[in-house]
Amino acid sequence: MLVLHDNLGSGNAYKVRLLLSHLGRPFRRIEYDVTKGETRTPEFLALNPDGRIPLLQFSDGRTLAQSNAILFYLAQGTDYLPGDSFAQAKVLQWMFFEQYSHEPFIAVARYWLHFLDQREGLEEKWRRGYQALDVMETHLCAAAFLVGGTYSIADIALYAYTHVAHEAEMDLAPYPGIRRWLDRVAEQPGHALITQEEFS
Amino acid sequence: MLVLHDNLGSGNAYKVRLLLSHLGRPFRRIEYDVTKGETRTPEFLALNPDGRIPLLQFSDGRTLAQSNAILFYLAQGTDYLPGDSFAQAKVLQWMFFEQYSHEPFIAVARYWLHFLDQREGLEEKWRRGYQALDVMETHLCAAAFLVGGTYSIADIALYAYTHVAHEAEMDLAPYPGIRRWLDRVAEQPGHALITQEEFS
Repeated sequence: MLVLHDNLGSGNAYKVRLLLSHLGRPFRRIEYDVTKGETRTPEFLALNPDGRIPLLQFSDGRTLAQSNAILFYLAQGTDYLPGDSFAQAKVLQWMFFEQYSHEPFIAVARYWLHFLDQREGLEEKWRRGYQALDVMETHLCAAAFLVGGTYSIADIALYAYTHVAHEAEMDLAPYPGIRRWLDRVAEQPGHALITQEEFS
Repeated sequence: MLVLHDNLGSGNAYKVRLLLSHLGRPFRRIEYDVTKGETRTPEFLALNPDGRIPLLQFSDGRTLAQSNAILFYLAQGTDYLPGDSFAQAKVLQWMFFEQYSHEPFIAVARYWLHFLDQREGLEEKWRRGYQALDVMETHLCAAAFLVGGTYSIADIALYAYTHVAHEAEMDLAPYPGIRRWLDRVAEQPGHALITQEEFS
């Protein structure tokens, strides 16, 4: 069975749980407290030298890190990744945008506020986070989903931290395109927060 | 003909030029001065709402942003991307690592020093940059290349800013695995800095 090295507070880990839910694939969760350094122990670093969750472990022992790489692998051949290679590249474009221009600002602001109660430096995180939302809004005012008009792992990747932007004290009121898209994502079959130890 | 919206100082754009050189694919370059806001004009934002180079434009007008998404698209079906889907996922794992844990520290330190003459905040960039190099070193002490023992776009993605780490005033002396890997990358056929307007 798949083992997900996980953290229930992490949006990056949430992405993987959400796709596994859509796919109906059973998995076992191992929870790590990132704030206590549980992903920096020698045992965990032997699994992932980068010391981060989520990490997906297969029954033969192979491991795969980086949430969006995990999504891309699991979505191969499913409805959650278009088959056309240019559309796949557009999915990747949005996923690299997420990790470079969205997550380091919105997710970090949320982490500081929600888990560390730290406010210093928030203004710059918000400024860059709103820039990322502006880019999404431009696209989502004219399209139902991020790539090709259908729900894909690009939407899962960007939904993860956008739908909890309020926990970063960010306001989605000026973003009607994003708010309609959040609703469309939440209406997808199999959309669920997977928190149980195992499901089948 | 392919048009690369480009900047000769950018390591992200360099990745695309290096792969195009390996592939022997002709392209036309349009140079932008990022420091003068040339990627934030209405004309450029119409091409890429994220306002960043590199941006690849195809003869039919379609565009693709994000350097690593461009690499993945161009490398499909070539020797620069393994055919196996798990190996492709490992390539993506390293490319997401590059954009999340390597580029924001090493490339930004280099940009501050090399282009802006700014030193404030460098220590934190260096600390996180060396963490990224530590992760690479662990892997490259035991492997010739990042994925599956053969040169791929994962190597191109991480070579781009690692081979100019000295411009960020970072020292590769404690990283013999990385230094040997840099040499191996530079020995690959077609390895060249492409700076001319067009080649064929």
